[in-house]
Amino acid sequence: MNTHPTTPDDVVTEPMCGSKVPTTVLVIGAGAVGGFYGAALARAGAQVTTLHRSDFDHVRQHGIRIDGLERQEIFHPHRVINRLEELPSPPDFLLVSLKALPDPPVAEIIRPAVGKQTVIILLQNGLDIEEPVQQAFPDHEIIAGLAFVCLQKIAPGHIRHLCHGKITLGRHPSGTSPKVRQLADLFTAAGLPCQITDTPARARWIKLVWNAAFNPTSVLAGDLTTEAILSLPEGERLVREIMLEVIEVAAANGHQLPKALIETHLEATRSIPPYHTSMALDHLAGRAMEIDAILGAAVRAAHRVERSAPLLEGLLALMRLLEGKKIGKSE
Amino acid sequence: MNTHPTTPDDVVTEPMCGSKVPTTVLVIGAGAVGGFYGAALARAGAQVTTLHRSDFDHVRQHGIRIDGLERQEIFHPHRVINRLEELPSPPDFLLVSLKALPDPPVAEIIRPAVGKQTVIILLQNGLDIEEPVQQAFPDHEIIAGLAFVCLQKIAPGHIRHLCHGKITLGRHPSGTSPKVRQLADLFTAAGLPCQITDTPARARWIKLVWNAAFNPTSVLAGDLTTEAILSLPEGERLVREIMLEVIEVAAANGHQLPKALIETHLEATRSIPPYHTSMALDHLAGRAMEIDAILGAAVRAAHRVERSAPLLEGLLALMRLLEGKKIGKSE
Repeated sequence: MNTHPTTPDDVVTEPMCGSKVPTTVLVIGAGAVGGFYGAALARAGAQVTTLHRSDFDHVRQHGIRIDGLERQEIFHPHRVINRLEELPSPPDFLLVSLKALPDPPVAEIIRPAVGKQTVIILLQNGLDIEEPVQQAFPDHEIIAGLAFVCLQKIAPGHIRHLCHGKITLGRHPSGTSPKVRQLADLFTAAGLPCQITDTPARARWIKLVWNAAFNPTSVLAGDLTTEAILSLPEGERLVREIMLEVIEVAAANGHQLPKALIETHLEATRSIPPYHTSMALDHLAGRAMEIDAILGAAVRAAHRVERSAPLLEGLLALMRLLEGKKIGKSE
Repeated sequence: MNTHPTTPDDVVTEPMCGSKVPTTVLVIGAGAVGGFYGAALARAGAQVTTLHRSDFDHVRQHGIRIDGLERQEIFHPHRVINRLEELPSPPDFLLVSLKALPDPPVAEIIRPAVGKQTVIILLQNGLDIEEPVQQAFPDHEIIAGLAFVCLQKIAPGHIRHLCHGKITLGRHPSGTSPKVRQLADLFTAAGLPCQITDTPARARWIKLVWNAAFNPTSVLAGDLTTEAILSLPEGERLVREIMLEVIEVAAANGHQLPKALIETHLEATRSIPPYHTSMALDHLAGRAMEIDAILGAAVRAAHRVERSAPLLEGLLALMRLLEGKKIGKSE
C-alpha cells in the first residue's frame, strides 16, 4: 500500500522524503464501475475510501471481491463509509460512478464531500453531465471519465470483470491539466489502459453511439445479450441505424464522428463474450434504468438543433412506457 | 335454421318455392374472429361448418360460447370438423380467419375445401394477402374482409366479445359483386354493421395504420393495454408517429389516406375499454405473432417504392429479435 512501516520509536518528524502523501480518493457509487476503478487507484497507491448504502456492512467486513480475467482480487478500501459526514477530510479526487439517473442531482449528492481542492471526476454515462456540476462548483476542476469495460455486480461487494477496462479522461470542458495527468498516471500504474482526451464531450458522444444502440435494444428485444442482437441480420441493421442516427445528431451538435465508428463499435462488440448491457441487467433486476442519460440526452440534443431522431424518439417512448409499467402507473 | 320440416310423405319433388337452400359457409380458423363472425352468419340463416384442431372435441360437444356485450350466446355450428376431408361438399363461402402467418400459405391450407363455385373470404390482417390466393385460384371470386372488433378467446370454444363488430367487405381487387352483397346482407341480418368497399386494398391500409401502431408497441412496452400506451404523452406521440409513417408509405404506394385517420383511430381507441392487442395476447401466451403480416408487409411496401420507414423497420427488428429469443435461437 506504499505506506512506510512505522514503529513507536519512529517518532522523529522527518520529511516523507521523496515519498508521497498518498493521493486520497473518495468513490461515490461504488458498484461495479466504482469498485473496479477504485480498486485500480488503490493498487496504484491511492488512499481510497468508498461510500456504500446497502452493501456497507458487507464491504466493511469483507471488502470488494473482483473476479477478474486472470485472477481474483479482494479490494479493501482504506475506509468504508456509510454517510459522507463520516469522512474526516475532503478527498483530493472525488470519483462519481453513480448510475446516471435524473434525480437527485449529482451536485447535491456530492456536496458534503467536496473540499476546496477536490477534483471531481464524473465516471458516468450521458451527455452534458459536467455542466450542472460545474455550475454548482464553479471554481472546481471537473474531469469527465469514460469507462470502456464489461463489468457485472453479481452480489453485494462482488464484481465480475468480463473484459476490457480502458478509461478515457478529459478536463471539462476541454484541454488538459496536471490533475488529469496525475489521475491517468495512477490508472496506468494500476495496469489499466488510460487515454487522455482534449475533447471529453466528443468522447461522451462516442460512447453514447454504443450505449444508445445496444442498451435499449437489449431490453426491448427481451433482455438479449449483445451477441443475440447481432445474431439476426435485422438486429445488426437496427444497431447500425441507431448508431447512424446518433452520429448524425452528434454532427448537428458540432461533434463530427467518423461513420467508421460503427464498424469499430461492432467489431469491439463481437470480440467480447455475449454481454448483458447494464440496462438489461437493471431491467431484469427491476432497478431504475439509465433511460434519460442515454436516450433522453440524445433526443434532447436532436431537438436542441431542431432535428428529428425517429429511432431514438421511438426507443425512448418504448422505454418510458416499459418503465411506467414497472412503477405501476399503467397496467 | 330456415330449413323446411320434411315428413316421409313429403316426397313429391317440388321447387323450394321462394324458400332458400341455405347458404353454406365453412370457417377455417374458428378462433375468436372466425367463431364470432361464423356465429353471426349462422344467426342470419347460413349453414355454418367450423374447422378446429385443438378445440375440436370441446366445440363438438359444447359449441362455441360467446360472452357478448349484452348477452351470452352458444353457437352450435351445423357441422364441426377436424379435417377438411370430412366436408361432404364444398361450401358457398369459405371464410378464412386464420392468424396471418407466413407459413403455410393460405392457398395450400384451403385447397381441399375450395369447390368450383366457392367464394373465398380472407378475413385476416395484412396487406396484399389476396393476390397469392387469387393466383392459386384464378377463376374464383375472392372477397377481402376486415373486422373492426375487440375479441378475446379466453378458453377452448370460449370467446369474449368486448366491443364493436363492424366488418368491411370488398371484392378483390376492386369493385363489388352479388356475392359481396349477399354476404353483407347476411352480416346485416345478424345485426352487425357491414360496409361494402370498392377499394379493399385501401381498407387494408386503414386497418394497418392501427395495427402497426398499437400491436408492436403493446408488446415491446411490456404487454401494455391500449389505454396504458396512451396514458403517457410519449406513448401517444409514438403511436401518432408510427401511424403517420404508415400513412406516408400507403400514399407512396398509391393509397391516399387522410391524416385525420390518426385522430379517428385514436378516438376510437380511447372509446373502448383498456384493450390487449392480439399481438400482446399472442406474446403473453407464447404463440406466434402476426409480425410479418403487420410490420413485414408495411416495410416491404416501403421498400417496394424505395422509401425508408425508420420506425416500422426498427419495430420490425425488435419484434423479430423478441420472436427469435422465444424460439430459443439467441439466448
